[in-house]
Amino acid sequence: MKDLTLALDAMGGDHGPHVTVPAALQALKFHTSLKIILVGNETEIEKYLPQTSSTDLARIEIIHTTEVVTMSDRPIHALRSRKNSSMRIALELVRDGKATACVSAGNTGALMAMAKVLLKTLPGIDRPALVSCLPTMTGKPVYLLDLGANVSCDSDTLFQFAIMGSVLCEAVHKKPRPKVALLNVGIEAIKGNDQVQQAGQILQQTEQVNYIGFVEGDEIYTGNVDVIVCDGFVGNITLKTSEGIAKLLVHQLKRGLNDGFFVRLLSKLIAPRIQAVLNKMNPDHYNGASLIGLRGIVVKSHGNADEAAFLQALNLAATEAKRRLPEMIKDRLESILLDINS
Amino acid sequence: MKDLTLALDAMGGDHGPHVTVPAALQALKFHTSLKIILVGNETEIEKYLPQTSSTDLARIEIIHTTEVVTMSDRPIHALRSRKNSSMRIALELVRDGKATACVSAGNTGALMAMAKVLLKTLPGIDRPALVSCLPTMTGKPVYLLDLGANVSCDSDTLFQFAIMGSVLCEAVHKKPRPKVALLNVGIEAIKGNDQVQQAGQILQQTEQVNYIGFVEGDEIYTGNVDVIVCDGFVGNITLKTSEGIAKLLVHQLKRGLNDGFFVRLLSKLIAPRIQAVLNKMNPDHYNGASLIGLRGIVVKSHGNADEAAFLQALNLAATEAKRRLPEMIKDRLESILLDINS
Repeated sequence: MKDLTLALDAMGGDHGPHVTVPAALQALKFHTSLKIILVGNETEIEKYLPQTSSTDLARIEIIHTTEVVTMSDRPIHALRSRKNSSMRIALELVRDGKATACVSAGNTGALMAMAKVLLKTLPGIDRPALVSCLPTMTGKPVYLLDLGANVSCDSDTLFQFAIMGSVLCEAVHKKPRPKVALLNVGIEAIKGNDQVQQAGQILQQTEQVNYIGFVEGDEIYTGNVDVIVCDGFVGNITLKTSEGIAKLLVHQLKRGLNDGFFVRLLSKLIAPRIQAVLNKMNPDHYNGASLIGLRGIVVKSHGNADEAAFLQALNLAATEAKRRLPEMIKDRLESILLDINS
Repeated sequence: MKDLTLALDAMGGDHGPHVTVPAALQALKFHTSLKIILVGNETEIEKYLPQTSSTDLARIEIIHTTEVVTMSDRPIHALRSRKNSSMRIALELVRDGKATACVSAGNTGALMAMAKVLLKTLPGIDRPALVSCLPTMTGKPVYLLDLGANVSCDSDTLFQFAIMGSVLCEAVHKKPRPKVALLNVGIEAIKGNDQVQQAGQILQQTEQVNYIGFVEGDEIYTGNVDVIVCDGFVGNITLKTSEGIAKLLVHQLKRGLNDGFFVRLLSKLIAPRIQAVLNKMNPDHYNGASLIGLRGIVVKSHGNADEAAFLQALNLAATEAKRRLPEMIKDRLESILLDINS
């Protein structure tokens, strides 16, 4: 296979190079044809490289920059003023064809704004969406979008997200006519806010999408639906809430299974099995959301990702690059949009 | 103690009298001074009463009506046209002082609209909010509002919800200056939609509320905050998503602990302990959300509540009635609003 190059915003996220550089080194072991460009403060980055073999070092390039996008930068400010930031330079490497994909754990709004301007959206798409796969009861994943790139969305944007989600699921899982739903406060047609109701009406008239109607929050994890669409405000809170309740359940379970000698003994014996289940549910295993609808691959990691979690984001970027995801989506998207507009 | 009368919308919810009547009979056993008025189709209701003792029957009154509010009724339609519905008559009993509280598992939007018109809001409050307590890691509950009564909220409404939540927590838990937060997609001041940002600015200037800023979805279950405010669209989806992920985790755990003879044996031994934890986390144990900000007590149950879950909603209504909740809130609310406006 042809060489694959990832551009990393090495400074992004809560931990910066402390997490991004060791994760990058891990990724090199997993993907033998991978090269990585680390963008950020060279001195900071090199702190984590002394043990690295010369073979691995040959697959790493560092582009030095001291400017960073902070978590409190407004997108518009980041776009106008952070011209030499690690985030922007990493994106420019994708734009200029020097890297196939960019990975960042930095400010979501800034990443979205910069990616949109630098990489441009696919034809017919106004705004990229942040999308991720979540586990379900059937074992089959569900795509949820948008996860926070667009805090407010009108019905047209939700409609475009539904099409993108459908095309993505079809392309990645080779699933014809995936079931697409809008996340709402009830399944009845009268439920919800104006945006969701209008998007529902448009989707109902769109043969090209297998729209099944509204679903409530508890349907996300049943596996009955393939793609669930909502605005980024709702999507982000939904995702974080899921993490919160999963952590609470684990906490309660640990406490409940640590109370009394006999229970503790049994718990110890069965602990690896419980741990295996919890690991599968660990949001870190699902770290990495893709910004889709762009003419390039951008993967956003959790800001607080640890090394293992950030590695997942790198794996996702590598997989999408190998699949040539934007090209896959673009062709199908164009034919659907042409069909709709004709 | 003085007699306490609950008015039940016996026809509301997915199961109607099949669930509401047996739950009402259970409630009579728990609360010795309780009387219940069952509003709905007499023939349907009486199907579930043949085994009832004459002592219990003496504590039950049936008000016959054949009209019901359906789940697909728009609030405005329900308000104008369902004048003889079980939901409306149950609310009128509270308005007319014939019952202390109303409980319904019916259409949330219709219940909210009718309750607002029939019972009126407390002074200074424009819209009632649906609020419930959720479990947290510290064991201390957190109040989340709004849970679906108001799908769209401007910053003033969110501000009023913050005050109501704070007063409710103070009143019920005798906790001075409870910590109040706004649910958002990030903790930084720049994050979120216009409504949330503006509400945050108003709250920051409001000494009467112990506002601690924005929180993300995973903070709901940590126990670090006492009151979390959001619009009803986000709140409803947050709540339902939590149920969904909890069910998924239980499902995975059961499957993981049923794989292989030794594991199955251990699981059987430890099953009661795991079940105890899961029971504690079961959303049915938290069933019943209060419509606060009204001059009367209205409790909304899940539409799909079973007998045990609906009983929880009845218990909540009885507890609020015993505490005279609206009066408790009203006085503190008035003094805060007077203070703010002066």
